[in-house]
Amino acid sequence: MAAVPSSAALPLRIVSSGAWLPRRRIASTVFDQRWNKPAGWVERHSGVASRAHADADERASWMGAQAARDALQRAGLGLGDIDCIISACGVMEQAIPCQAVLIQRALGLGDSGVPSFDVNATCLGFVVALEMAGSLLALQRYRRVLIVCSDIPSAGLDPDDPLTAPLFGDGAVAVLVERASDDQASALLATRLRSYGDGAALCQVPTCGTGMRLHDGPEAYRAAHYFQMQGRALYREAARRLPGFLQDLLASAGIDLQGCDVIVPHQASGQALDHLQRVLGLPPQRLVRILAEHGNQLAASLPMALHQALLDGRLVRGGHALLIGTGAGLALGGAVLRY
Amino acid sequence: MAAVPSSAALPLRIVSSGAWLPRRRIASTVFDQRWNKPAGWVERHSGVASRAHADADERASWMGAQAARDALQRAGLGLGDIDCIISACGVMEQAIPCQAVLIQRALGLGDSGVPSFDVNATCLGFVVALEMAGSLLALQRYRRVLIVCSDIPSAGLDPDDPLTAPLFGDGAVAVLVERASDDQASALLATRLRSYGDGAALCQVPTCGTGMRLHDGPEAYRAAHYFQMQGRALYREAARRLPGFLQDLLASAGIDLQGCDVIVPHQASGQALDHLQRVLGLPPQRLVRILAEHGNQLAASLPMALHQALLDGRLVRGGHALLIGTGAGLALGGAVLRY
Repeated sequence: MAAVPSSAALPLRIVSSGAWLPRRRIASTVFDQRWNKPAGWVERHSGVASRAHADADERASWMGAQAARDALQRAGLGLGDIDCIISACGVMEQAIPCQAVLIQRALGLGDSGVPSFDVNATCLGFVVALEMAGSLLALQRYRRVLIVCSDIPSAGLDPDDPLTAPLFGDGAVAVLVERASDDQASALLATRLRSYGDGAALCQVPTCGTGMRLHDGPEAYRAAHYFQMQGRALYREAARRLPGFLQDLLASAGIDLQGCDVIVPHQASGQALDHLQRVLGLPPQRLVRILAEHGNQLAASLPMALHQALLDGRLVRGGHALLIGTGAGLALGGAVLRY
Repeated sequence: MAAVPSSAALPLRIVSSGAWLPRRRIASTVFDQRWNKPAGWVERHSGVASRAHADADERASWMGAQAARDALQRAGLGLGDIDCIISACGVMEQAIPCQAVLIQRALGLGDSGVPSFDVNATCLGFVVALEMAGSLLALQRYRRVLIVCSDIPSAGLDPDDPLTAPLFGDGAVAVLVERASDDQASALLATRLRSYGDGAALCQVPTCGTGMRLHDGPEAYRAAHYFQMQGRALYREAARRLPGFLQDLLASAGIDLQGCDVIVPHQASGQALDHLQRVLGLPPQRLVRILAEHGNQLAASLPMALHQALLDGRLVRGGHALLIGTGAGLALGGAVLRY
């Protein structure tokens, strides 16, 4: 297997990003009380102090549209400036149709015809969407692409599972990208995705598809309805593959770690972030950590960290960002971009 | 909204295609009997004489892997010759992880690292996957991409709905594509997708995502678990937009209808195929109709028709194919390729 490295730079420029969080915020002390633990126990074990949970009226498509409006407003652009919508949500809102048309409808573009489709690599969908958008822009098939990652993991969490219930949070991020002009330095220097389906069962929701069917057995379906994570095995497998993956990604981008002004990781867990910090060996302030206030937001997690890096000025025009994550699949994904 | 037409040709060459059908075949007379109709009534109304239904052990990922093996065998290639897997299934097998890694695992590539991700535009996913693969190949990010469309609509059909229960069938198709070399004429001349989210409710499954949750109300969930189609409204909306869409697609490709050797449509319904036939005004033998033996196979439907056109020699090297379809979204999608 001589895979061709995805190494050529693509003329992708992030125009703006926007975010939206559900109104209801759950403090970790709520979980402490649920499980009769001393105050602070859940925060210490999960790395999450509080997270937002969407109510029934805050659907993923609606949240995604709110984030998109935020991104457009920050860029001084309007709905007419988007000519393609890519949803890179980790979980769908419903089985049919695809998530992107629901976002398109929520944005008020439901009669526009604007091409809308999904890409999905669970927690790493944003990395795939960046490569797709970058390729489409490089070939001048579109002028400006809206990438939306909106996820509601709280909908599928077992409230009695101390490993997953406190770890995840809901939220939406939209990132507007366009083709960098010849006089702009912005570029997507490299992307990389490595998938290991043998690890598919380490992190899964077995229902919500054709594999298990409600009418075949409601009890079994209900029992498999919640998100399942074998945290330790997932961490071990991901950690084992991370150093080589990182090395290959940086080599494709023609950059070394010191040249990366900011590291934007998927916020998988406190343990995963600590491990990444050790592997990188960089000053902690270069690593964007938003886990404590957001939890792991599935596919929205990585772009939410990117949005934060842009808001707080850690990533400025001309600066370099390393995006990296491990997640369900099992998959490792990353990108290096010059903002 | 001045959308840039997706007009530039991409150097995509179809290497081979393969298919797989579930073992159990359901004749339309089974439905005649269920609904106390005279023999032939269901076939006459649905346009489907028989269709395959997957059993529980024939999962979508497994079917997709079988189709992929068929495609590889026809090309004289092996698993090591694939360096990217794109799932373009219309419905997932489970919510997490994405479908492509499950296919990768079923293929025995679960430890390979081969990048595997999904694109989703429901019934038109293959068109989007072609554009994505074509763009990645044009930019030499991959050498050979495996596109897999495997769907099991029978898992979500209301057995008592005469409109949908007989119309759909299960199946899987895999199409292997590579970069056309400079001395090869093969090309993806144009692709086009237009999405109209205002029509999202015309064709939907409201469950199997974060929008409706089993634990919020099992009865409501169960009632919304089946595929819902407002056939007449869907047909009317799609028909209204089809002529203009077709004209734009052909203009992007720089070809007229007469130049298209074969028309490969999504097999939405007998009525939709009849309408397309009238709009095109071409000799009937140019239109690939596989509805009677397969039913509508969601995302697998269009590439299954393409596979058939290749098997029966209606599409030969150097010949031109028009791929076209309308589906859930509401969306219209199409492509013109020189095989």
